[in-house]
Order: sequence, then structure tokens, then C-alpha cells
Amino acid sequence: MVNLQYGVEVTSLYPKSEEERHMQIIKRRMIGEELTEEEISTLITCINQDQLNDIEVAGFLFSQQLHKMSVKEIVAMTRAMAETGNKIDFPGVVNDKHSIGGVPGNKVTLLIVPILAAAGLLIPKTCSRAITSPSGTADTMEVLAGVEFQSEELVEMVTKTNGIIVEANVDISPVDPKIIKVEHFLGINPESMMIASILAKKLSMGVDNLVLDIPTESIKVKNLEEGRRIARKMVRIGKDLQIQIEAGLTYGGQPVGDCIGPALEAREAITALKTKGAYADSLIEKSTALAGMLLDMNGKTPRGQGKALARSILTSGKAHSKMMEIIEVQGGNPKQSDEISVGPYKYELKTTKGGYITQVDNLKLNRIAITAGAPKDKGAGIEIGGKRGDKLKQGGLLLRIHAEKEKKLDRAVQMAKKITPILVHGMLLERITITESYTCSE
Amino acid sequence: MVNLQYGVEVTSLYPKSEEERHMQIIKRRMIGEELTEEEISTLITCINQDQLNDIEVAGFLFSQQLHKMSVKEIVAMTRAMAETGNKIDFPGVVNDKHSIGGVPGNKVTLLIVPILAAAGLLIPKTCSRAITSPSGTADTMEVLAGVEFQSEELVEMVTKTNGIIVEANVDISPVDPKIIKVEHFLGINPESMMIASILAKKLSMGVDNLVLDIPTESIKVKNLEEGRRIARKMVRIGKDLQIQIEAGLTYGGQPVGDCIGPALEAREAITALKTKGAYADSLIEKSTALAGMLLDMNGKTPRGQGKALARSILTSGKAHSKMMEIIEVQGGNPKQSDEISVGPYKYELKTTKGGYITQVDNLKLNRIAITAGAPKDKGAGIEIGGKRGDKLKQGGLLLRIHAEKEKKLDRAVQMAKKITPILVHGMLLERITITESYTCSE
Repeated sequence: MVNLQYGVEVTSLYPKSEEERHMQIIKRRMIGEELTEEEISTLITCINQDQLNDIEVAGFLFSQQLHKMSVKEIVAMTRAMAETGNKIDFPGVVNDKHSIGGVPGNKVTLLIVPILAAAGLLIPKTCSRAITSPSGTADTMEVLAGVEFQSEELVEMVTKTNGIIVEANVDISPVDPKIIKVEHFLGINPESMMIASILAKKLSMGVDNLVLDIPTESIKVKNLEEGRRIARKMVRIGKDLQIQIEAGLTYGGQPVGDCIGPALEAREAITALKTKGAYADSLIEKSTALAGMLLDMNGKTPRGQGKALARSILTSGKAHSKMMEIIEVQGGNPKQSDEISVGPYKYELKTTKGGYITQVDNLKLNRIAITAGAPKDKGAGIEIGGKRGDKLKQGGLLLRIHAEKEKKLDRAVQMAKKITPILVHGMLLERITITESYTCSE
Repeated sequence: MVNLQYGVEVTSLYPKSEEERHMQIIKRRMIGEELTEEEISTLITCINQDQLNDIEVAGFLFSQQLHKMSVKEIVAMTRAMAETGNKIDFPGVVNDKHSIGGVPGNKVTLLIVPILAAAGLLIPKTCSRAITSPSGTADTMEVLAGVEFQSEELVEMVTKTNGIIVEANVDISPVDPKIIKVEHFLGINPESMMIASILAKKLSMGVDNLVLDIPTESIKVKNLEEGRRIARKMVRIGKDLQIQIEAGLTYGGQPVGDCIGPALEAREAITALKTKGAYADSLIEKSTALAGMLLDMNGKTPRGQGKALARSILTSGKAHSKMMEIIEVQGGNPKQSDEISVGPYKYELKTTKGGYITQVDNLKLNRIAITAGAPKDKGAGIEIGGKRGDKLKQGGLLLRIHAEKEKKLDRAVQMAKKITPILVHGMLLERITITESYTCSE
């Protein structure tokens, strides 16, 4: 007789071989048992050494969906993941900012790093490429400079500029891409794995102070309540890992700034830096708020006053100069940052009626930008014509789609016309009249 | 033994006297029985002749909350209510616009009537004073001219100007205030009674074409779905009453225009007319959309094109001239419409931080305006500094409160500071850090 609990054969809980022992640990987690530090470490090490097959990794991930991991388990998993790779020692207090994602156009890193570096803080920012979005920060930064470096190079570069924006190195938490591969295949991302994946890299980079950006009403976090819960958990776990974490719950209900896609986002960030904050309101607002939190945490400003300092660094032009240094140290040409080329094929979608923007859909905008070619085609993406509450006249710009290939532009335009990512309404939303077919007996 | 159904004694369903017979009808409705046309007519007639006491009227209203009335019952009730008063015969096709309310600052009637009258349509608009809001249209119009007239006078006035804006006459559905008195006391307003109350007055005024304004996301109608349901029901009932009804579902999530309170609203409407539509965007937008529907229904324009004509009547200045005629025929002084005095005591509430307006609360704004003295003190009310999505700098105006009496201003200011009707946020909504007291074991 097969005794099933949560679809798991309980009879197979008594393993016969070493291989079976790993599966047994996973099965115990699947029926709700808390694992020990050692058991979690064993699993992570085995995944890293390719000793678990995809089905076993899937089982481990699935167990985290079924039964939430305890703080103790997540801390153990984070440590184990960090231990699969190298730890880099930077000379001084290491700062970092991390967004859990879910909001398009979130190019704040390209403003926050130069602001903080100009203030004298050490911020060796590692970031990732897009997995499901139109542009990861690594994709965006790559428009301006190189992003792939060896661990030794990072220390050298940071010593020169205080700040860098590079892709997370292969030496850093190498188990991570192996787990992400299975997550991506299954279409799941358990919260515990998301947290461990983020914080393992911070441990490896020796991060002391971390500001977490948690966009709410976004693709990933539904509302403020949900954001608060995740924030509290991560702050708490940070304490055990001896990383000082503060979380900023931000508004993620529509894109940050107006541009989505690697080259368009890079251009928007550089413009914001160059015009000293006169352009791209929501982008400036969010970047200075988060940078300000790190200035506070480092004692550069009294608590709550970091944002004003961040803004003054931006308006003084120091952040722009610092960004030019960063581009140079990463092998880019600062002068070319003024002439970022975007996709030559473009199409403007306009509103057929005047009114107010009542909806801007993050997911739909992402789909259109990806269809246009982003992130692979760096010049592909979207510029939006407004945000919620903005007034558009008849014929006003809803969005401008850029592509590097004509065919991809066509496909993106067709999609945009069909799924209407931006809705415009007058004060009159709908008109109801009697029709022959209609009967109301209520 | 007392046999109770929905709290009603079933044994008392067999009446002994004439008075008991009325109560018996009400009790049958309370346990879910549909009443006949004759029974409903009896009840309405008795209420009008003060033959039912308040408890009996309350029971009849309560029965409508317990069990929704059928279309047939509402039609019968509407006819019975209209028959309690006079019917006025206007010479020609009679047009009307009616808002079911629930959105502050809704002074659209003061634009719609002159636009339609200038287009040659007959629109003898009757309106009511505020019951629970800071200003009914009758209160607002009274700032500019008289609003109380005899039935005979109405016909004479409309013959001269095509349009008037007056208080619903005492001869029109006189049972209505008697029912409203009990509704107000109980704090209920059953949907069937709301519909019958509105349409009985339209029957009495001989209305042929009616545009209903149904503000959604408002105090009264939660969302579009709910608005659609009410709209369909009223359009359907209109058919039985031989009134051609079209309903406009409008956006009622925040005030229409920027002003709330009789004199402030009158001033805003006159400014919008005088500047030919250059001012008060949402007000113009909504007024022309609704006026346009009536132009369509009268065949003045092809379907869907009435709004453009309405706007051209506004921008030509004809609507303003017509409003001056209307003020004059109602015994007001058109010249004084340029110098409407508002409450001399005022206070500006400013935002202590810059950011975006994320919430504008209709109910809270109403409470503050009423505390400041509206609608009794005509000059009392509120001007708001922005709508959702607008950006405010630090120190930017949230709202300006006007009052005629210093004491009332003080109370309104205290309330406004406490209940914060308008919220401003940056992109950073909240900052979460670890505190000694906080433990997260999840």
C-alpha cells in the first residue's frame, strides 16, 4: 500500500542509498517538516555540484510553495548559497541597494550609485540581466559600458570610483543560476528562494548596509500590506546575517520614468543626471528617496534628511560627473553617453479621443517591449506618453514603440493596438440606452 | 403563539379595521410578497394624506430594503407619486438631465441648461436643495437668482428662455418630501424609492427625453458594474413610463471641478461659462458630454456627435449669454454674477511634503464643507488644490476653506487637519526598519 501525504509516498521516507537520502530530505520538507541547517546546506551543496536532478530541485522549490520556510531555514539557505562561491572583501563599509523588481522602467540604480559614490560611500552594485522583463539593470548598463568582470577587477575599480554597476559575477553564489533555471522552467519563484537568492549575493559581496526597494501594486507585490510583510521578513533575516537592512515600500503601479528597454532607459537615466534632476520626475523622486535612506544609514545625514542631500548631489552635477567616471572605469566611452542610439524603426500610437489616463498596465507594457525585441535588441522598447491622471488631447501620444527590426516593430504595434496598455477616458465612461434585445425584469 | 417571518407577526396579517388594512399591505411586502398596482397606489395616497404614521412609512421603506421591488412595482409607485400632485404642460418636447448624486462639486446643471437652451431645446430643470451634501443645485442656483416659483410661472419663464433652473415645486409630487423625511430619519434610501422619487417628478414635468448622470466610484455608486445595473433598470422603467431615458456612467471618484459649496460652485460655473470653456477642465468635459447626449437624442446631431456641438455653443459664448437671460428671468441680476461673494474667513491647508496626490476623499471633503457652514451659509465651502495624480511641491495648496463665521472656519480647519481628505505621497510610501520591539518568527 502506498501511503500518500501531500502526494508524497510516506513509505519512501526511509532511504536505502546516499542519493535516496537527498530525496528523503526533500520529501520531509514537502510534508511540512522544518529542516536543519545541515540538511539545507546538504541540499544547496548538492544542487551546486549537480548531484540533484531537475526533478529533485523542482521538489525542493515546490516544498517551499507548499510550506513557507521559517526565518531559521531561510537564514541557513542564504548562508549555504553564499558559501557555494567566493566572498569579495572591499576596503571599507559596503553599501548596496536592491529592488525586488516587478515595475517596468526601474532604472533608479543608474542614479543612486553615482549619487552615493559622489557622497563618498562605497557601492559595488551587482545586478542581473532580465529574466522575464524587457530590461534588467545589467542590460541597461551594458548600453553605456562593460558589465562583465572578474572578482579581482571589481575591488580595483571600486577603489578608483567608489561605485560600479556590474553584472553579478559567476563566482558569486554560483548555485543561483542553477536554481533560477528550474524556477523559470516551472514558472514559480517561492518567496524564501527569492529572499535567499538576493541576500546570498549580498553576503558574498560583504554588504554592510542594504536598502531594499519593494515596489507595491506592482507585478510582484500586490499591495502595501503584502509589501510590509515581505519587508519585515527580510529586515529580520538581515539581522541574523549581520546585514543592516532598511526597506522602502515604493509605488510600483506604473512605470518609473517614461522609458522601457535597455537603450531607452540608459538614455533616460543619463538625461536625468545631465539635466541635474530637471527631467523625469518620478525617476528622480524615487532615486533620491532611496539614495537618501543609505545616506542616513551611513550617518552622512540626520535620519530622514538624506533625500535632500541626495538631491543636492544631483543638482550640483556631481552625480553626472561621477557616472562619467564609472562608465570610464568599466571600459565605456563617457562621451558616447550623449548619443545613445535607439531602435530606428518606430511607431507612435495616439489616442483617438481626448481624456484622462485612467490605467497604465505594467504587464502589458512589458509584453509589448519584449515583442519589439527588448532586452536582446538593446534599442527596442517603449516610451509612454503619460501617467495615470495625465490629460491627453485627441491625437495625443499614448506610446512610442522603438525596434531594431521592422518585423518586430510590426508585431509590437499589432499587439499594442490589441491589448491597449494605456486607457484614456473622458468624465463620461459609458452610455447606456435601451435596445430591442434588452429586457430587465428585476 | 406568535409566528414570526422576517421579524413580522404573521398572525396579524388578517386586519380588523381600515387602518390595519394598510399595515397589512406593508407587512405582506415585508415578507416578500409583490404588491398590486392598486395596493401601492393606496399606500402612496395614504402617505400623502398623512393617513400613515411614521412607523408605517418606515415599514414600507424597510420592506424595500429587505426585498427589492420589481420593475412593475416601481412603475406603479412612480405613477402613484406623480398623481399626488399637478402635471405641468410645457409647449413642446421637454428635456431634462438628472444626476443621482454622490459626487461633490457637481455643478454641471449650470452649464448644461444654458447650453441646451441656447441650442433651442426646452429644458425646465427642477432641482433640489442639499439633504446631506454641502450644496444641492437649488442651493447653488439661489446664489445667482430666485429658485422658488409657482407652476404657472414656470411655463411662462420657459417660453421666454427655453431653460430654467428652479427648485422642484411643492405641487410636484408632494408626497416626496414626506417620504424623504422618514428616509432621512432612518438613514436609508431604498433603490426603488430613489428611482420612483426621481421619475415621478419627471412624469409631473412632462419630460420626454431624460439624460441620467450616474457618478460611479462615488459616495452612492461603488463601481461601474453597480452603475450599469442601476442605469439599465432606470432606462427600462423609463420605457414603461414613456420617458426616453439614456444614462451616462460618469467618473465620480473625486469632485467635479475644484469648488464645493453654494457660492463657490456658482462662481466656478459662471467662470467656466464666461471663459468659454478655458477653465475647470473636468467640469467642462462632463457638462458637454451629458449635454451632447441630449442634443443627439433630439436629433440635433448624429449619434455620438452632440458633445462637439455642446462645446461649440460653450466656446461661442452663447451658453454664457443664455445663462444671463436665465438669471434675469428668475429675478436675479446678471451683472452681479461677476461678483459672487464667498465667505470672508478663509484658511489654506498646505502640504508639508512634496509629492503626488494619491487620494481625494469625497465624503471627507463634504464633512469639512458642511462643518464650515455649507449649504446654509452660502459663502462657506472648499476649493481643492489638485486632483489625483497632480504633483504638489512642499507647501503646495491642498485646500482652501471658506466660511462666513470665524468659529465655523476654526472647526472646519481642525477637522480638515484631523481627517486629511487629500493625501500626498512621494514615490517612497513607507520606510521599514528593525526595531527592538519587533520580532518576526514566520
